[in-house]
Amino acid sequence: MTQTPFKQFLFGGDYNPEQWPKEIWAEDMQILTDVHMNEATINVFSWAQLQPSEETYDFSTLDAIVETLTRANFDIVLATSTAALPAWLVTRYPEVTRTDYEGRHARFGGRHNACPSSPIFRFYGAKLAGKLAERYGHLKNVVCWHISNEYGGYCYCDNCAAAFRVWLRQKYGTLDALNNAWYTHFWSHTFYDWSEIVPPNALSDGINHDHNVVLSGMGIDWRRFQSEALLQNLKDEKAAIRQYDPDTPITTNMMGTFKDLDYFQWAKELDIVSWDSYPAYNTPHSEVAMRHDLMRGLKGGQPFMLMEQTPSQQNWQAYNATKRPGQMRALSFQAIAHGADTIQYFQLRQGRGGTEKFHSAVISHADHDETRIIRETRALGSELAKVGPQLMNGRIQAKVGLIFDWDNYWSLEYSSGPSVSLTYVDQIKRYYAAFYRQNTAVDLIPTNLSADQLARYDVVLAPVLIMVKPGVSDAIHQYVANGGTFVTTYMSGINDEHDNVIMGGYPGPFRDLCGLWAEEIDALPLHTAVLVQFGDTETGGSIVANVSHLEGAETIAAYGGADYYANTPAVTVNTYGTGQAYYVGAVLDTAGMDVLVDRLIQDKHLDHFTTPADVELTTRHYPDYALHFLINNGNQTETVDTSRFAGMPTLIGDGPVQATTELAPYGLIVIQETK
Amino acid sequence: MTQTPFKQFLFGGDYNPEQWPKEIWAEDMQILTDVHMNEATINVFSWAQLQPSEETYDFSTLDAIVETLTRANFDIVLATSTAALPAWLVTRYPEVTRTDYEGRHARFGGRHNACPSSPIFRFYGAKLAGKLAERYGHLKNVVCWHISNEYGGYCYCDNCAAAFRVWLRQKYGTLDALNNAWYTHFWSHTFYDWSEIVPPNALSDGINHDHNVVLSGMGIDWRRFQSEALLQNLKDEKAAIRQYDPDTPITTNMMGTFKDLDYFQWAKELDIVSWDSYPAYNTPHSEVAMRHDLMRGLKGGQPFMLMEQTPSQQNWQAYNATKRPGQMRALSFQAIAHGADTIQYFQLRQGRGGTEKFHSAVISHADHDETRIIRETRALGSELAKVGPQLMNGRIQAKVGLIFDWDNYWSLEYSSGPSVSLTYVDQIKRYYAAFYRQNTAVDLIPTNLSADQLARYDVVLAPVLIMVKPGVSDAIHQYVANGGTFVTTYMSGINDEHDNVIMGGYPGPFRDLCGLWAEEIDALPLHTAVLVQFGDTETGGSIVANVSHLEGAETIAAYGGADYYANTPAVTVNTYGTGQAYYVGAVLDTAGMDVLVDRLIQDKHLDHFTTPADVELTTRHYPDYALHFLINNGNQTETVDTSRFAGMPTLIGDGPVQATTELAPYGLIVIQETK
Amino acid sequence: MTQTPFKQFLFGGDYNPEQWPKEIWAEDMQILTDVHMNEATINVFSWAQLQPSEETYDFSTLDAIVETLTRANFDIVLATSTAALPAWLVTRYPEVTRTDYEGRHARFGGRHNACPSSPIFRFYGAKLAGKLAERYGHLKNVVCWHISNEYGGYCYCDNCAAAFRVWLRQKYGTLDALNNAWYTHFWSHTFYDWSEIVPPNALSDGINHDHNVVLSGMGIDWRRFQSEALLQNLKDEKAAIRQYDPDTPITTNMMGTFKDLDYFQWAKELDIVSWDSYPAYNTPHSEVAMRHDLMRGLKGGQPFMLMEQTPSQQNWQAYNATKRPGQMRALSFQAIAHGADTIQYFQLRQGRGGTEKFHSAVISHADHDETRIIRETRALGSELAKVGPQLMNGRIQAKVGLIFDWDNYWSLEYSSGPSVSLTYVDQIKRYYAAFYRQNTAVDLIPTNLSADQLARYDVVLAPVLIMVKPGVSDAIHQYVANGGTFVTTYMSGINDEHDNVIMGGYPGPFRDLCGLWAEEIDALPLHTAVLVQFGDTETGGSIVANVSHLEGAETIAAYGGADYYANTPAVTVNTYGTGQAYYVGAVLDTAGMDVLVDRLIQDKHLDHFTTPADVELTTRHYPDYALHFLINNGNQTETVDTSRFAGMPTLIGDGPVQATTELAPYGLIVIQETK
Repeated sequence: MTQTPFKQFLFGGDYNPEQWPKEIWAEDMQILTDVHMNEATINVFSWAQLQPSEETYDFSTLDAIVETLTRANFDIVLATSTAALPAWLVTRYPEVTRTDYEGRHARFGGRHNACPSSPIFRFYGAKLAGKLAERYGHLKNVVCWHISNEYGGYCYCDNCAAAFRVWLRQKYGTLDALNNAWYTHFWSHTFYDWSEIVPPNALSDGINHDHNVVLSGMGIDWRRFQSEALLQNLKDEKAAIRQYDPDTPITTNMMGTFKDLDYFQWAKELDIVSWDSYPAYNTPHSEVAMRHDLMRGLKGGQPFMLMEQTPSQQNWQAYNATKRPGQMRALSFQAIAHGADTIQYFQLRQGRGGTEKFHSAVISHADHDETRIIRETRALGSELAKVGPQLMNGRIQAKVGLIFDWDNYWSLEYSSGPSVSLTYVDQIKRYYAAFYRQNTAVDLIPTNLSADQLARYDVVLAPVLIMVKPGVSDAIHQYVANGGTFVTTYMSGINDEHDNVIMGGYPGPFRDLCGLWAEEIDALPLHTAVLVQFGDTETGGSIVANVSHLEGAETIAAYGGADYYANTPAVTVNTYGTGQAYYVGAVLDTAGMDVLVDRLIQDKHLDHFTTPADVELTTRHYPDYALHFLINNGNQTETVDTSRFAGMPTLIGDGPVQATTELAPYGLIVIQETK
Repeated sequence: MTQTPFKQFLFGGDYNPEQWPKEIWAEDMQILTDVHMNEATINVFSWAQLQPSEETYDFSTLDAIVETLTRANFDIVLATSTAALPAWLVTRYPEVTRTDYEGRHARFGGRHNACPSSPIFRFYGAKLAGKLAERYGHLKNVVCWHISNEYGGYCYCDNCAAAFRVWLRQKYGTLDALNNAWYTHFWSHTFYDWSEIVPPNALSDGINHDHNVVLSGMGIDWRRFQSEALLQNLKDEKAAIRQYDPDTPITTNMMGTFKDLDYFQWAKELDIVSWDSYPAYNTPHSEVAMRHDLMRGLKGGQPFMLMEQTPSQQNWQAYNATKRPGQMRALSFQAIAHGADTIQYFQLRQGRGGTEKFHSAVISHADHDETRIIRETRALGSELAKVGPQLMNGRIQAKVGLIFDWDNYWSLEYSSGPSVSLTYVDQIKRYYAAFYRQNTAVDLIPTNLSADQLARYDVVLAPVLIMVKPGVSDAIHQYVANGGTFVTTYMSGINDEHDNVIMGGYPGPFRDLCGLWAEEIDALPLHTAVLVQFGDTETGGSIVANVSHLEGAETIAAYGGADYYANTPAVTVNTYGTGQAYYVGAVLDTAGMDVLVDRLIQDKHLDHFTTPADVELTTRHYPDYALHFLINNGNQTETVDTSRFAGMPTLIGDGPVQATTELAPYGLIVIQETK
Repeated sequence: MTQTPFKQFLFGGDYNPEQWPKEIWAEDMQILTDVHMNEATINVFSWAQLQPSEETYDFSTLDAIVETLTRANFDIVLATSTAALPAWLVTRYPEVTRTDYEGRHARFGGRHNACPSSPIFRFYGAKLAGKLAERYGHLKNVVCWHISNEYGGYCYCDNCAAAFRVWLRQKYGTLDALNNAWYTHFWSHTFYDWSEIVPPNALSDGINHDHNVVLSGMGIDWRRFQSEALLQNLKDEKAAIRQYDPDTPITTNMMGTFKDLDYFQWAKELDIVSWDSYPAYNTPHSEVAMRHDLMRGLKGGQPFMLMEQTPSQQNWQAYNATKRPGQMRALSFQAIAHGADTIQYFQLRQGRGGTEKFHSAVISHADHDETRIIRETRALGSELAKVGPQLMNGRIQAKVGLIFDWDNYWSLEYSSGPSVSLTYVDQIKRYYAAFYRQNTAVDLIPTNLSADQLARYDVVLAPVLIMVKPGVSDAIHQYVANGGTFVTTYMSGINDEHDNVIMGGYPGPFRDLCGLWAEEIDALPLHTAVLVQFGDTETGGSIVANVSHLEGAETIAAYGGADYYANTPAVTVNTYGTGQAYYVGAVLDTAGMDVLVDRLIQDKHLDHFTTPADVELTTRHYPDYALHFLINNGNQTETVDTSRFAGMPTLIGDGPVQATTELAPYGLIVIQETK
């Protein structure tokens, strides 16, 4: 499936009428229809209501909800309700809850609380999904399945331990292979029987919660196993649904750069990617954009669903500012610009109780339609009703690919040393943001692309590619040899797929490609920097600074200052075949990143566009036209030189584009360029 | 009981001679008598000595202590020793200790360590109290019972879980009612059997330790239950005492704004309130005063006992500064000014061992009477011996009532969103402190006063009255209709008694009263503020800022700045009947609070008095005279315009009041005004 | 044994070839020989490999390693491998792992993971040591036994509880004695049966993790017991070794000022002290020096082994900077200057996996010998090969003794109050550093020296000597009476050996000696100071400030400022017999410490020498000559007035000493002065 599977631009969101008396539902339908909504996501947390006991199911409330929505012409995204266990199931089968990192087995409470390896949970979770599919799968307006909800969190119970051992046995075959892969001769960890292996937590091999296990190979395998175990839960439910409903698309809502799950593996099981975007009041615009691009990248550029965003405030952050007037619209169009083909909210009616009751919703506690949120929602709904079909199914044509990989995420953050300041997403963001500042499109891509697949990019970025899995180095070598430009950094090329160091000097398999040997990785104390002379620009390096030796590469930036590695290479470029490989030896500050990216843009003639800092330009391409989304993400009026687009019509905007465009706070225009 | 039950002004404190050889007791009696002490609080932590085993009791040491004190003419406050379990009881009956928030069941150690629901603990605790009453209750100089000590802390064990279920069944009758009250359809929490309910802790529905449970209705019921379970322990002991001693007053020592216990409920069971005041070196004077006023308010203004204060240092704070010369006296008179009719210390002799050994005491490790503490205690004792009878039983006549309510405390702090900076006591303190700066008397009052009871106040303050329990709104409406002035704020009028939102727009039941609808509650990031134009004064709002619409009210302060709610109402006043209702939309800074309070003082002609910042004036009224306590709480000399009192005699001071009074550091005068 | 037991200056370190294929060993031997290494420390974590099951041992790999090293002429330090349990032992006997402070019993993982009281662990640990001794003890090049590794950490399991009770019964005989010693009448802690006593942790009497238990006497006894229990593990292994190997020296590697173990007790069981020195990039030079001096002091000045240091980076600190060029050499010579007779590294080859893989090693991941580390190691090896024999067995002749005592360490840090900023090592460091700034040699000494032993020092320093154990006060009195100079401070002379206060006024047994009574100990809030007028110098006191009364002493510094103790004594000196006793009443800042130390140096004519701040001069004495180590520990070039040594030859350096010596960054010279 490469097109959005929906017949219309879905505009709606999570709706939990089971928390309310039925009298209120009619009012809801009226308000939601009035704001141009056409979709509701239902049944997300209703297991306890759907199944009052082990033996009985009760679909009467859900039937009524479906009927109400159907009568109001709403499409339905139907969740399977398995993300929170019913209390009776926990009481009867204590094994269904999780054991946490501290070794404590949970009693009833919370959500996302099921042990993924519990046979009881797996049986009853899938059974419920099947029952729902049998009953509702045939309905025309059930347009999508939403399995569980925001999967995440690990379990360290004995069922998981047993399943982990099975998983390991399948992976390694022999304990010798496992001992070798995990480097178990370290600290006397040699295993002689599979039963000796226990999950790495606070009671065993965990060194602390956020960082580190004694054997990082074990730690990464544990994460792989848990990600797969949770994915198996999804696959169980999917199989149950497919018994009754062969073709309604299936998704689960993801969470951007969430660490626990290898979303590239997960996306393979989904018909369409969906995700929940919850920027805080101070999240950089580039970070929001990057997360969208990562979600789009999970299925190779296919449009995705914005399954959840808040109409205004969240409740669970420290400081939950309201979205400013226009900001919700701007964020919605930013999502669309980056590949979203739906706009959905959490939630349509604000709860009266429960920990999320101060999370905003379309219909607020005021219980009427005279709120700012309603007005802004109605205005956006009106726009989407008009132009929605033209927005759908556009593609971003990026010439820059940025590798994002969960094994690398885990490997980098399991590294003990050289610096606690080196975290994965922060590093990826620095590279993304530098291109974002130039409005140059970037795809987030997995590690395992072939040279042919890489060839669609002029530039491939691989910051902190600490783990080089089989085939990766070959593909990159071939890509560069054929003319590609590759950029990698400090902490790349260090480990193999088991998280053991590749001997022979950093950056290991990229040493010949980059024409350089990184002998040392100095760690800079917090808030200190080393001078980096990058052309005419004095920039700063922080966190880590490699001490490197040229082996064919050319130095394009050198360390300054008086320390022992002053005047040695900080950033280099090496010609390999008909391509080039850059190696960045220190964490560059913004100025340094800009010099680097300017050079890449110039060299590779990458498309870019100058805007004020708060304004972004993003382009989606359609068979017959392109849409340029020019969005002011900030709360000041901004003026943009739009002479490049002068005279083109606007899909959203006040007539044809002028040479100069003034954008109100959170204002935007969508330019339609005919091909 | 509305008068202090003691025949003399008690001056003494905690005394633990059982930790010392008897040889030292005679020396103690001599020193303590010399410093004019007349009371000792004994037997606070002696259970293990009183009852060496399940079958045996040994009162010989306590007999000797009582005899020693009696011979030295000391009154005795007799504690029941149940605040710390003996080790043998724990070893024999492990159920008597608590299970903590993390789900860990304690072994022997610490204090305040008994599970309130343990039948074994309840049996033996009450039994000990009865035995003490039987043996000592008839003694004339046993003037007060001190049950247990500083009750607090919760237990999450299975006995408590079972008792909680019984409590819930009594409260709700049916699970339907409970499910409705707790909003259990949220996150699939519907209960079908009482046994499915478990205490909300880290293993169940707790989200984190300080904040939040998934279902705040459950969380608040849990706190109500635990507060009552501990109170039941007190009632058990009280009943046991009353079997033998029908009339000696009973108290337990409280802890000011301590969160765990609903002290208004507790006070009903006490004959006199007592509490332990432990300001740190940097606690604001107004905060100390407010805690006294809260303790006085627990029984509607009846005088209280200052059961514990330290003569100089504490040991358990981070930085335990000594009290400066005169500071202990100033703090003592501040307590008296606010309603204390005793001055008692922890403790009379400093321990040689145990975690409190660096806590100061009247008799220090130096073991003689040539210390500064002794000199200052003797001087104070001499004053109290002289004027004590005249100090006792005065009443504060406040025309301002400030609502303090534990359900609201819990509800506000269980709120997830809009801001983590919004904490209950901090909010109450802001309102208290603003009146304190004007030396205007304030009563701390409960939520459940009738309109008639409220009518004794010209102004009723209800900051962050987030939970409006049944009857509260009606009483306040009637109070205002009849001419009262009511002040409420952001985060008021939101939840019902189950912590579910009252629909229809904030501030819910106060919307008509305040003539305003608060549509949005913006949260301001840490250390940011929004401009509030309050008359001619530019003030700042922080933490939260409501976006409101007038529905009859008048704007008296509006937001400034350039944000979207600039020029909308920040503070309003509405006329309702013959009264007025103020609504404050943002957390005001000191300047803003002062403008508001000045207005209230002017409008309502409230008594006030100008002093330097560190000086307070507080007045107690007696049948025939009033005493004005003018206290310098600071360490600089201060000059006060006392022309209002010129010529009046001083009970403490150098002759009649002059037009201007100079107060040395920590100096004070007590002015006697004849009626 | 008072001489270093080795025939040559050992230069080597930890070597773990069992983690590598044998093919690589030959390369290792070549590189290590080339850098002049002559020693390898092996078998530190190989238990799982040596003993694959309860019934079988396999020494084949270790045989091969020993053979390889022997053939390459390496001396061997042979570890016993008992510092990390094999997984099979944990699976079969879960009791062998520890129960932590939180009460959680560990599963398999980590290292230093054995319960010291487990009979199973004790049996198999000692058995392994015996087997190793039987097999390798006779080898000539096995020059030292290295039992376990970096002992530390406590266990709170039931086996430990039972052993603790036995230990207590042996110590106290009766529960009465224990109750008295522990002051158990506090908070109802009286024990009536030994079985009622449980280890003080989070489930019992622990108040928090870092600080405090309810009964500090129990807390200190628990620490004494755990230190002894771990020491018993060492003794078990030692006994097993001695069955087969009567004379090879035995050590275990210590960790400087590590809190858990009473190293003075441990040193008695060792033939030679060894330790692991891991300064961070920002550790003060004086602190590194002090730790060396403490390690030297453990056996009364006998040279020690520098068992581990890193050639460049560590991995486990937050920011693991590389050692700058020359810095590893400077740190090595600093160790030698302070008494080290070996230079050993962790480790010789950098691991490919495990949590320490980013810890630097002599042979790095680059896997060749063209690294900076190799070059610097080779240069140092070359120097040591040349001058090593002349460096060995020198003695430091200090005239200043500084008391360091683990009971005091524990007592001070168990103190609740007066200030959390008062930590033991920090206090000791302040006194050490002040002498270090003058290049005056200091011995770290235990508390229990006799007056005769003390008499070898002109000055004895006893900062925060809070616990005065039996005999200590007498020895110090006699030492001073005979002409010694004694310096003590705030928080000294307070507790007896059970941590109960010595009555009669601080500083207790030193009150007559110091001629002063410290009535109060004020605690100063964080970042505040009190003025101290010390002669002409205005200095500052922080953390605590005593309010004292002279009883014969003379004030040499008084408090300034306007607070109540202004103009009272801050620092005093008292003449006692023919000696003097100083009492320092507040934590002095650097300027204040310098005034004090200048006075002591002048009065006692202590040897001192002026250098720039980063340069130290330390002298070792040999029968026929002295070596003066003049080391620049900083990264700037420094100039030193060396006229005192002008003309003397240099053992390391460019010819005879000039009047002025310029030291490059991390540069050093070693001056040889003939006697």
